Amino acid sequence: MNKITVQVPMQQAGSYPIMIGTGILYGLLDHIEKQFPKKSLFIITDEKLVQAGHFKLLTGDKNIPHYVITPAGEQSKNMTTLTAILETMEKYRLGRDTVVIGLGGGTVGDIAGFAAAVFKRGVPVVHIPTTTVAQADSSIGGKTGVDSSMSKNAYGCFWHPAAVFIDTVTLSTLDDVQYRTGLAESVKHAAIASSEYFVFLEKNCDAILRRETAVLEKIAEYNCRIKASVVEEDPTEKNKRRILNYGHTIGHAIESASDYKLLHGQCVAIGMIAAGKIEKAMGLVHDDRLERIEKLLTKLELPTKIEGGLRAHPAVSQLMDLLALDKKAVGKWPRFVVLEKLGTVYCRESQWAIEVKPEIVKQVIEEMFYD
Amino acid sequence: MNKITVQVPMQQAGSYPIMIGTGILYGLLDHIEKQFPKKSLFIITDEKLVQAGHFKLLTGDKNIPHYVITPAGEQSKNMTTLTAILETMEKYRLGRDTVVIGLGGGTVGDIAGFAAAVFKRGVPVVHIPTTTVAQADSSIGGKTGVDSSMSKNAYGCFWHPAAVFIDTVTLSTLDDVQYRTGLAESVKHAAIASSEYFVFLEKNCDAILRRETAVLEKIAEYNCRIKASVVEEDPTEKNKRRILNYGHTIGHAIESASDYKLLHGQCVAIGMIAAGKIEKAMGLVHDDRLERIEKLLTKLELPTKIEGGLRAHPAVSQLMDLLALDKKAVGKWPRFVVLEKLGTVYCRESQWAIEVKPEIVKQVIEEMFYD
Repeated sequence: MNKITVQVPMQQAGSYPIMIGTGILYGLLDHIEKQFPKKSLFIITDEKLVQAGHFKLLTGDKNIPHYVITPAGEQSKNMTTLTAILETMEKYRLGRDTVVIGLGGGTVGDIAGFAAAVFKRGVPVVHIPTTTVAQADSSIGGKTGVDSSMSKNAYGCFWHPAAVFIDTVTLSTLDDVQYRTGLAESVKHAAIASSEYFVFLEKNCDAILRRETAVLEKIAEYNCRIKASVVEEDPTEKNKRRILNYGHTIGHAIESASDYKLLHGQCVAIGMIAAGKIEKAMGLVHDDRLERIEKLLTKLELPTKIEGGLRAHPAVSQLMDLLALDKKAVGKWPRFVVLEKLGTVYCRESQWAIEVKPEIVKQVIEEMFYD
Repeated sequence: MNKITVQVPMQQAGSYPIMIGTGILYGLLDHIEKQFPKKSLFIITDEKLVQAGHFKLLTGDKNIPHYVITPAGEQSKNMTTLTAILETMEKYRLGRDTVVIGLGGGTVGDIAGFAAAVFKRGVPVVHIPTTTVAQADSSIGGKTGVDSSMSKNAYGCFWHPAAVFIDTVTLSTLDDVQYRTGLAESVKHAAIASSEYFVFLEKNCDAILRRETAVLEKIAEYNCRIKASVVEEDPTEKNKRRILNYGHTIGHAIESASDYKLLHGQCVAIGMIAAGKIEKAMGLVHDDRLERIEKLLTKLELPTKIEGGLRAHPAVSQLMDLLALDKKAVGKWPRFVVLEKLGTVYCRESQWAIEVKPEIVKQVIEEMFYD
């Protein structure tokens, strides 16, 4: 055999700005048009954002090609919607000089990022996250994707945004449950990366629940700084980025077992408590952090136990089976992210996710059900 | 507004091997399994490769999860097939430790690369190109994609293969038309990058048409070295990679106007002659290169004129309209790659594709029709 070696050059480093403010949607398109001169814009949003008036606030008198995801939410996060979006872009005869703008929550952002990544082999995407979870988490870091018929985020790319704009005003129209469940990602960020932020959340629970914009801007800043510092260090999740998975391993299993009737943030809240119980069972805890996390989640009206609604029985073995299917599992059993203390993830031998015996996990899950 | 800047680190350089031989399919999976220990394999191929026995030759007694694209060819190169492939991978419960193997021509390679790029946010792909066009061109360089309902390769990614294996034996089962049309890409490579290769092709036409393996291996090596050197310099087609577009700009328009009844290589052959006529019309030619290209294409039984079959009239204005829609067009009119001499592309002020007045293009197209 003859052998030829093809070199793939390195890709240059880059950067993107996250702008945080209150009432910035109005006039934002002018700003984006200046930032991307001579580009065609295409907006992806969903029916909820249209109903809430945010789409109109963004576009004003401009007639911008767009796609409205209907129905809003996870049920539309699939290849069918992706294809419909791409075909709409084709019908508008858009080309490589297009900038995709995603206005919405996690579903809109993930699918808009994916569409931008694959349209004409890649065009820039600008995220305007409008929910607590998207502003805290999914709009930063470049993960995009849609669900398969069997699992979440099964298909997608890493595709970093060209810019992110966070307007706290968009949070004002969220219903209470959606608003609160997204706060779980804020608690997660504080727990894994900043005890100062954790204290801030403890002190400002009431203002947060009242959606006071000054506090919301501060939270957005904390979240973005923490998320950004983690993804900068490990953009494609080879190791340290896994700390963002804190509360998510058991959380995902619960979410799946509930047939996604429980919301992501609710499951992450329960998952963080489960992680705390794992820490205790492994003898890693010598402080009151589990109690403080539990108290904060409770104040934010997030669940800390599994309250039924899982789709099969016996639910414990079902959750154990789902954990064995975790997409980050190594040899059919996942590793778990646990804390060293509030604000610091437990790390040994450069591993940010540790081995936990199935017996310990099983025992913890049993404790997680309401009597 | 508060501003936070997120750094996106550079991506390391890499490389991948292209192995060229005759009769290497048998036993190749063992080789691939050794190259990727502890990985699950998934093969994407099409019904023609199964019928020709190449799939069986590759897999032997092994029972490897796979997807057979049916019907074979461009008509299956769409989001529906991509989704079906991805769902099949999910049903086999494949994870991030999967290696996708694409065994086939351009359609298989493009779609296998795309599937690998988006499955679980990216897994490695190994290409085993089996046609003249795929071995010369599409398996190297990392372009992947599927067609939209309106245009070719509208959706896709850049996703470099982990390895490419070229077995000249697979060319033996191609029908004559498919075999010969793929040779157009070889003529293209010679014309833009190597006068030595061009002379080799001129001298070996008969052996090429007889599909003599020694000559086929030599051609594969020339093609891969040329293509590799171009994509190494400009992997995401910012500038110099455009030279690979020689013969393709008018070629694509003809292909589209024929509703893809004319094959890609046939249209590229005609497109290269059109490029030569543009060179002449612009006063850039002082040698016999156009005559030599025409003679070589004719010997390889490739067309050098438009022989009807276009879907609308008047066909000249239709081709002009299609050129204005070219996806690489800047301001509704494409740039054209032309030659300085055989083996060298015309380049001025670092531009590898030049402006050509529509009147000149129109006049050339008029000359390209059979009387």
